[in-house]
Amino acid sequence: MSVKKKVFFVLLAFVPVSIAAHFLGWGELTVFVTAGLAILPLAAWMGTATEEIAVVVGPSLGGLLNATFGNATELIIALFALRAGLVDVVKASITGSIIGNLLLVMGLAMLLGGFRHKEQSFQPDVARLNAASMNLAVIAILVPTAMEFTSKSVSRIALQNLSLAVAAVLILVYGLTLLFSMKTHSYLYDVGVVEGSEQLANNDHKPNVWKWMGVLLLCTLLVSFESEFLVGSLEAATSELGLTALFTGVVIVPIIGNAAEHATAVTVAMKNKMDLSLSVAVGSSMQIALFVAPVLVIAGRLLGQPMDLDFNPFELVAVAVSVLIANSISSDGKSNWLEGTLLLASYVILGLAFYFHPVIEGIG
Amino acid sequence: MSVKKKVFFVLLAFVPVSIAAHFLGWGELTVFVTAGLAILPLAAWMGTATEEIAVVVGPSLGGLLNATFGNATELIIALFALRAGLVDVVKASITGSIIGNLLLVMGLAMLLGGFRHKEQSFQPDVARLNAASMNLAVIAILVPTAMEFTSKSVSRIALQNLSLAVAAVLILVYGLTLLFSMKTHSYLYDVGVVEGSEQLANNDHKPNVWKWMGVLLLCTLLVSFESEFLVGSLEAATSELGLTALFTGVVIVPIIGNAAEHATAVTVAMKNKMDLSLSVAVGSSMQIALFVAPVLVIAGRLLGQPMDLDFNPFELVAVAVSVLIANSISSDGKSNWLEGTLLLASYVILGLAFYFHPVIEGIG
Amino acid sequence: MSVKKKVFFVLLAFVPVSIAAHFLGWGELTVFVTAGLAILPLAAWMGTATEEIAVVVGPSLGGLLNATFGNATELIIALFALRAGLVDVVKASITGSIIGNLLLVMGLAMLLGGFRHKEQSFQPDVARLNAASMNLAVIAILVPTAMEFTSKSVSRIALQNLSLAVAAVLILVYGLTLLFSMKTHSYLYDVGVVEGSEQLANNDHKPNVWKWMGVLLLCTLLVSFESEFLVGSLEAATSELGLTALFTGVVIVPIIGNAAEHATAVTVAMKNKMDLSLSVAVGSSMQIALFVAPVLVIAGRLLGQPMDLDFNPFELVAVAVSVLIANSISSDGKSNWLEGTLLLASYVILGLAFYFHPVIEGIG
Repeated sequence: MSVKKKVFFVLLAFVPVSIAAHFLGWGELTVFVTAGLAILPLAAWMGTATEEIAVVVGPSLGGLLNATFGNATELIIALFALRAGLVDVVKASITGSIIGNLLLVMGLAMLLGGFRHKEQSFQPDVARLNAASMNLAVIAILVPTAMEFTSKSVSRIALQNLSLAVAAVLILVYGLTLLFSMKTHSYLYDVGVVEGSEQLANNDHKPNVWKWMGVLLLCTLLVSFESEFLVGSLEAATSELGLTALFTGVVIVPIIGNAAEHATAVTVAMKNKMDLSLSVAVGSSMQIALFVAPVLVIAGRLLGQPMDLDFNPFELVAVAVSVLIANSISSDGKSNWLEGTLLLASYVILGLAFYFHPVIEGIG
Repeated sequence: MSVKKKVFFVLLAFVPVSIAAHFLGWGELTVFVTAGLAILPLAAWMGTATEEIAVVVGPSLGGLLNATFGNATELIIALFALRAGLVDVVKASITGSIIGNLLLVMGLAMLLGGFRHKEQSFQPDVARLNAASMNLAVIAILVPTAMEFTSKSVSRIALQNLSLAVAAVLILVYGLTLLFSMKTHSYLYDVGVVEGSEQLANNDHKPNVWKWMGVLLLCTLLVSFESEFLVGSLEAATSELGLTALFTGVVIVPIIGNAAEHATAVTVAMKNKMDLSLSVAVGSSMQIALFVAPVLVIAGRLLGQPMDLDFNPFELVAVAVSVLIANSISSDGKSNWLEGTLLLASYVILGLAFYFHPVIEGIG
Repeated sequence: MSVKKKVFFVLLAFVPVSIAAHFLGWGELTVFVTAGLAILPLAAWMGTATEEIAVVVGPSLGGLLNATFGNATELIIALFALRAGLVDVVKASITGSIIGNLLLVMGLAMLLGGFRHKEQSFQPDVARLNAASMNLAVIAILVPTAMEFTSKSVSRIALQNLSLAVAAVLILVYGLTLLFSMKTHSYLYDVGVVEGSEQLANNDHKPNVWKWMGVLLLCTLLVSFESEFLVGSLEAATSELGLTALFTGVVIVPIIGNAAEHATAVTVAMKNKMDLSLSVAVGSSMQIALFVAPVLVIAGRLLGQPMDLDFNPFELVAVAVSVLIANSISSDGKSNWLEGTLLLASYVILGLAFYFHPVIEGIG
């Protein structure tokens, strides 16, 4: 059994442990930590199941499946947090996922990939399109936030209606992005990503689709239990650790939700498959910004927990600068270890800022 | 008679109708709508007249003519609005013209052009120079706005003096931009634009310069009447429609003022002449930002309606993000339908924001 | 004796004059002006001495020497200002050095170089890496400034601790940047810069290292005296001139501190050595942002004059837009006179803004 598999099974043991911790009252901190660890192997398994099913159903439907379930873990955690009224934690985890994928994951991928390969390259046209999409995402959260920040008299209702309309625009754009990348201009994406994925997926095997759908269903169910434990214990656990809910939402929750993607992006970067690595890192950011966040706005309306796109201005600043520096580094289609360092340094600086940021009303 | 010509003559009929509406007291809304419709064919004719005269007087003087009269309609409307004391409407229409040209016109051009042609290309060096010029324009309105926003004690006089000095710098830069594009580095621009224009202008005919100067004079006169009707009825009409003056200024007035350019940019994009299409869209934005806006600052001083470059912070945000995304999309010299979609989505999001934006003191 | 040498010796005469002015009480304005003029030849000599020593000790150690002592004059002035409690003047001069190098120096180099050469080119990969490093620097000052601006309850202690941590990250990044440019990826930099430097340094002569170390020591000592005179007379002299301390800090002090680099960057640009010219201009900005500013944060803590990276928001805006437009102009690896004009126009607009900016508490 490989080391990777051993780690996987050890982490899986936290599923029953976390359930025990919750029902036997072992303390909120224990529940939080064990639920967080239990989510890691489940999320990884969901990823594998989605990819295996994608191999069977073909690239178009498979791509759609990946695009929809790719951030399922984060979506599930966020929905439970939203239902529990933790709107600010949800926003913080959206912020953190975008920042984490663009700076931490892409930074680590470029740094570790760059240690092995002097210069790495990827499709610059795709990088620039992703950059423009991320700029649109920044505009989408900048506009409601700036409106609230620059005007005293804007009503909460207006902000929610605006957010709902913007969410609809974003979901439409996300759909069109899929149409573009999978249908009309798929040749732009074929070069590196598909080739990389195929090699990874070991193309000649025929996955058992029913088995993997069972795995997907089971993991989704378990992730939703663990998410409830995680969210339920979040406030008590983080205050026990001396962390603010803002820091937890921006830094810790996204690391739990994105761990699987992190591992993939870094592994393939070290194999010099930068197109695939970036498509995981940037693709995950785009999915959060153009699909998960708008779905949560709509879900919030339905759950009676109105969530708008009016973020804490400091979170907006963090997202905007992350997009800025990630775009400036990726848009030439080349990377090296120093560029990875610059992304990681940005992540550390933002992380420090969220650590020192005073608790905000309503979030802690 | 072609469909285009029929539409033209139908719209021309609104000239007498709007005059009647004004003098016979048919209501402010009627005056506003008919004057707005009457301006469309007049603006189109002014554009044709300018181009025909340019053919006769040669490229250098003709380019200068185009560069000066290209946004004559908007300048005339703005001057009347300024004289009427509607300083905030003037600023809003400057904001709206820049946004509209960069996002709506360029977006439609790339989208509709991209439906016919998988990938379209244009001179990247010119696109990058335009991007840098638009960044300068953002700096020019950012600086007074940020000064007012970040400092409580800045005096109105200081802002006006600063704006006047900045306006002088911008007009100088605009002049140098013309010198660059028409004299010292005209070869950069020759590739696509001139070729496209020549084909459009059907180069072997000899236009009657006196006829076209008469047309230009007559249309300018009529546009100035219609502008007075439009501006005079603006506040009453828009409140009757339930729109704020901000939304009218940012969205409706610029569409009236720019309709002719819109049509040209989209038509030539569908013929795969992207250099010409972008030179119309981005060129018009540059002209507004580096020439029309500074001229209005100076005119405001002379008219005793002091206008400064201290914009509503939200308008500044809108201009800045429009320039950001337009630059990120155009600077590689290539476009496709998804990039058009991203620009249009940005326009829709900003338009929604201006729709939901609460009325601002002094503007409605 | 060449004109250059004559100017040098005339300026050198201000060393004794400024000392006399200080001790004989000729007035604060006289002290300020003569000390400012006296610093110019000393700074130039320090630059020459550093370069000559670098020739002897070899490229690696020499590069490190250059990278550490390159902005020694500014560092010395800033340390004296910091000890005198003029924290805001120090921040203003950091702002001004970054702006001045990116806009004034690079602008003049591109403009004057562009008059002689239609189009000039330089290594775009290096330009893009520098752009990304400058974006990181913007993030480093944006984060504490935005935290203070968007939150009422942030404590001064938290800001200082955050600034100290960010400073450590920046110094680490600066070290890694040197490692990248001098060791792992030196080939990227070799093309233009080294070739240019070698020609300038007239490679076949063997400099007397002891002589130049003596010059370096003497000049450093004299600069530190003159800096004390300059700082001591700054407040009285500038108020006598009717200037605010903000304007002095942002515009005048950096021109004194950077005059030698200005001259070099412009001279080599006119000889069409743009790689060397930009490495001086942008390199100097990077050094200020990633090395001098963080060193001052740490020095401030040790001197009991706690300096943080929480800048005046308007200074932040100025730095951010300077980096934005400098990056947008340099990242394609080509330049012409219009691009130089756009940079200079940005500098003039920002300079006007600082001239009209009301005096800020604590700074004047």
